[in-house]
Amino acid sequence: MSRYYTIAVDAMGGDFGPRVTVPSSMQALARHPNLTIHLIGHQDEITPHIRKLNSDIANRLEIAHTDQLIGMDEKPSMALRHGKGSSMHLALKQVSEGQANACVSAGNTGALMVLGRSVLKTLPGIDRPAIISAVPTLRGHSYMLDLGANVDCAAEHLMQFAIMGSVMTQAVEQIAEPKVGLLNVGQEEIKGNEQVKLASRLISEHGELNYIGYIEGDDIFSGRADVVVCDGFVGNIALKGSEGLANLIRNKVRSSFKKGLYRRLLGLLATPVLAELNRQMDPSRRNGASLLGLQGIVVKSHGGANKKCFGYALDQAVSEIEMDLPIRISRHIENQLT
Amino acid sequence: MSRYYTIAVDAMGGDFGPRVTVPSSMQALARHPNLTIHLIGHQDEITPHIRKLNSDIANRLEIAHTDQLIGMDEKPSMALRHGKGSSMHLALKQVSEGQANACVSAGNTGALMVLGRSVLKTLPGIDRPAIISAVPTLRGHSYMLDLGANVDCAAEHLMQFAIMGSVMTQAVEQIAEPKVGLLNVGQEEIKGNEQVKLASRLISEHGELNYIGYIEGDDIFSGRADVVVCDGFVGNIALKGSEGLANLIRNKVRSSFKKGLYRRLLGLLATPVLAELNRQMDPSRRNGASLLGLQGIVVKSHGGANKKCFGYALDQAVSEIEMDLPIRISRHIENQLT
Repeated sequence: MSRYYTIAVDAMGGDFGPRVTVPSSMQALARHPNLTIHLIGHQDEITPHIRKLNSDIANRLEIAHTDQLIGMDEKPSMALRHGKGSSMHLALKQVSEGQANACVSAGNTGALMVLGRSVLKTLPGIDRPAIISAVPTLRGHSYMLDLGANVDCAAEHLMQFAIMGSVMTQAVEQIAEPKVGLLNVGQEEIKGNEQVKLASRLISEHGELNYIGYIEGDDIFSGRADVVVCDGFVGNIALKGSEGLANLIRNKVRSSFKKGLYRRLLGLLATPVLAELNRQMDPSRRNGASLLGLQGIVVKSHGGANKKCFGYALDQAVSEIEMDLPIRISRHIENQLT
Repeated sequence: MSRYYTIAVDAMGGDFGPRVTVPSSMQALARHPNLTIHLIGHQDEITPHIRKLNSDIANRLEIAHTDQLIGMDEKPSMALRHGKGSSMHLALKQVSEGQANACVSAGNTGALMVLGRSVLKTLPGIDRPAIISAVPTLRGHSYMLDLGANVDCAAEHLMQFAIMGSVMTQAVEQIAEPKVGLLNVGQEEIKGNEQVKLASRLISEHGELNYIGYIEGDDIFSGRADVVVCDGFVGNIALKGSEGLANLIRNKVRSSFKKGLYRRLLGLLATPVLAELNRQMDPSRRNGASLLGLQGIVVKSHGGANKKCFGYALDQAVSEIEMDLPIRISRHIENQLT
């Protein structure tokens, strides 16, 4: 028995808007025959990018027109006050009202957080949603949260993140008992700040988690843990720091292969290798990030995503729908509360 | 007029102990004709590594014997209680008692912090020392602090870090008005956690700093700021995270150049380029980190440093001595207090 599902796409979000979101949506429809997509945004900007549709795909693509949008630099507080009727807001509303099973946006992260929380509400037992994303590791990839939704976290929040991250990794990666690590400055017991120490006690007392204890910064990319838990301040800076380093290295590689004719030729020959490395290098660009802990599925694509990357975010939404991720999280949290 | 100066080297510290610290010290003596080095550690382990000395260098090398050392995994609290008489402790004492102008150790960072603070004391007006290190950027390098000395920082501490980092960059890099950035999760005013917001106010009210405001994680490696200020928890995780990513990329590069004969040959041809990249990639290995805010100069080398890298730490100590770094910091802090 096949399931049919719908994704509401904030077509105006991201650095490139409909130029990326529309073609990428059509490609996703071709990949997923049970998928319907609602493109939310300005009709006149969306339509020019819809081309050469075969009738099957055309039947599964709808446009919901709005002329309002949330700017990439708009403050979350402004978005919350004045964002009603924007493409992002309407996409989230489609999820809360049951017209769509998930929302995907490449728009302003802060705005998506506050609007998502306001429109969809958090799951019972979850105080704050968290942003989770896959990061590449030596062994494949792991999941890291929170990546910026919460800058001041109490120990209880870190524990909720641990549960949500574990459930997501179980569901999406089919790992029976994902190893959960708590990010800290050292593996010694005496290290760490107060919230982290308390969170470590809470998580280790939680019977259902496969908690491996503290991990350090270099373990984010080693694959020692399947789920890396931290507060949003640390997670955001660690992830953006990695983006910055990847960028620096890309730059150095380029200039290293430009010193003299011999190296230029070598660089030319190595182009496919370097292109492959480029793809693997940047931990944040490949996958969509998910907002966990809401009563509905919300996937955030990188703002600068191209068609292919936006497609990863759409695929991510499809797997979360197929896994009923919010319900799974809800069940685990309820188990813990009772 | 030449100045003569002495460095006390914790010869037993680091993953390789005298095998690295002794030959590296001799190389430093050859580089710096005004330098004398006191090697503190077990005579029987040091002596075998002293070879083929010309008399000039021999005259500038002394051994101070002790059979005690602090293990790389020893807890800082244990080091503080039982570390008396260890090579690290004696090296620090040489600075506090005026026998040496600086101490260099590749030993346990936590132990060096607590012993450094206990033996040398902080400068007047400085509550806590901070660990600072150079990180590579698109434009050269910048300095980042704190990298792990303080896991729970108040706003005042962040401001003291800003002053110390600025003074060090002025002195060592000869930049008249170093740009100081405060690490945060976003450039919008509303973002950030409480200490960081308060610290931003304090730093911007400080007349003598060239404060450029908040910077984000990706700016650590962009060079937008000459001095990157953050608490030790965030700084440690960001830096170790970068180490982890650099390691991951190195690994991917290696395996990318191993897929098939053609790529293997290409990798062979590109060996010098790849070696050059390897050297540039890892932000933490190149330079020594300095402990700022103490009444004396303490430079921490990476534990896994080879002779060359340990040499960078020795060179770093030499420049800090030549610049009278603690006195400069002290002067700026006094200006601020009066």
